[in-house]
Amino acid sequence: MEYSTHVAATTLINSFQTKENTIFSHQISARIRLATELDVPHLHKLVTQMAEYHGLSEIFTTTETSLYNNLFKSNDPPFHSLTALVLEISPNPFPPITKSNNLISFTPIIKNNYNLDQMYVLDPELETFRSKFKGDGENNGNVYVAGHVLVFPSYNGFFEKPGLYLDQMFVRKCYRGMRLGKLLFSAVASQAAKMGMGMVDWLVADWNEESINFYEKMGAHYIPEYRLCKLYGDQLQSFSKKTD
Amino acid sequence: MEYSTHVAATTLINSFQTKENTIFSHQISARIRLATELDVPHLHKLVTQMAEYHGLSEIFTTTETSLYNNLFKSNDPPFHSLTALVLEISPNPFPPITKSNNLISFTPIIKNNYNLDQMYVLDPELETFRSKFKGDGENNGNVYVAGHVLVFPSYNGFFEKPGLYLDQMFVRKCYRGMRLGKLLFSAVASQAAKMGMGMVDWLVADWNEESINFYEKMGAHYIPEYRLCKLYGDQLQSFSKKTD
Repeated sequence: MEYSTHVAATTLINSFQTKENTIFSHQISARIRLATELDVPHLHKLVTQMAEYHGLSEIFTTTETSLYNNLFKSNDPPFHSLTALVLEISPNPFPPITKSNNLISFTPIIKNNYNLDQMYVLDPELETFRSKFKGDGENNGNVYVAGHVLVFPSYNGFFEKPGLYLDQMFVRKCYRGMRLGKLLFSAVASQAAKMGMGMVDWLVADWNEESINFYEKMGAHYIPEYRLCKLYGDQLQSFSKKTD
Repeated sequence: MEYSTHVAATTLINSFQTKENTIFSHQISARIRLATELDVPHLHKLVTQMAEYHGLSEIFTTTETSLYNNLFKSNDPPFHSLTALVLEISPNPFPPITKSNNLISFTPIIKNNYNLDQMYVLDPELETFRSKFKGDGENNGNVYVAGHVLVFPSYNGFFEKPGLYLDQMFVRKCYRGMRLGKLLFSAVASQAAKMGMGMVDWLVADWNEESINFYEKMGAHYIPEYRLCKLYGDQLQSFSKKTD
């Protein structure tokens, strides 16, 4: 079964591939793993696309260097400071996790051979997002980055246990509608539970009814009366000098 | 000037003090400093009062032990994990900061001899909140805890620099209306700026117009379209087990 799928996908890739276009057909496999330093250029592209999607390019200041510093310069283990998970997809099933993969603090999540609802997926940026991850048994290099999450530890003075704050969750446009967002979300929730944490929190835009419904169905508390405030830039600098 | 104020305040305290009631008159002095382990019982009372004020006692699970663990069991320096600042008040001016105070990572903020708008302040819990802080030149013990903030480092994938998330800011009821909230807020903003951070963010209840106005006047961006979501308790446990 897996073998025949592999062959079918490979055939289609060979038939339809043009420069940066490749088609996945029938089935797709997904993996979520801890980001490594090699993922920084892809992560930067993902957060840039996410800022565009939210109309926030004007305030966007993230650089590859700042991402690298925020993600990998801390001495804390993953999930104790800013941490990224990377969602990868492949036309081929991912190999099972072995201890030699040496991913101590987060066990990768693998879902092989999702059946696609639609006939095929066309990824216009496939080569751009070819995974740089060096693991063993890497599907002959047919692994592509399709999304990410950014999380960091959070606290709430009313709760006994700390939690994970989900700052970003993003799936590239051509891979939406395949429950990959749900897969990413449950990776975060499982990790919080595994670490003995008590909560996961995040923000949702009030116009995003689909997401709100999804989150409520999942059991999340939607707290409509709280609003986000943010002090940054010149205002932060000038306010920080006021002491009266 | 300072001496005469001291005498006046002391006289009034002696005249009006009953069990747990003491009156501050004319002037009050304030200090913001890093919390120590000795502050945990006071901090627990403060977060409990804050939960009551927000009608959240039902979901409140914080204990003295959990506060102690979340605040003081990390190996990170202050502001790199959950950190509390304590607001203290005194009828007497606070002594100037000396290096022997050994408060390396946060320089206490002192505002001596605020003039009170109202004639006097009656604190019904004065003895309960007598400060346990052991510093030098401690105003003859006439130092009382009046409020707190809880902050932790935060990240936003769209911003180059990390920030401080202001989880809680609380001033006990009898000390409100004296700009002590603003003093606490600017302690946080200054610290973020001093650490080279790029933002401070926090939530405000949409019914709290006074606060929203205060924050906007200060230059904060109020972002009305984002809503907080929170997954916790049984829902977190059960969702974290879903992998399909």
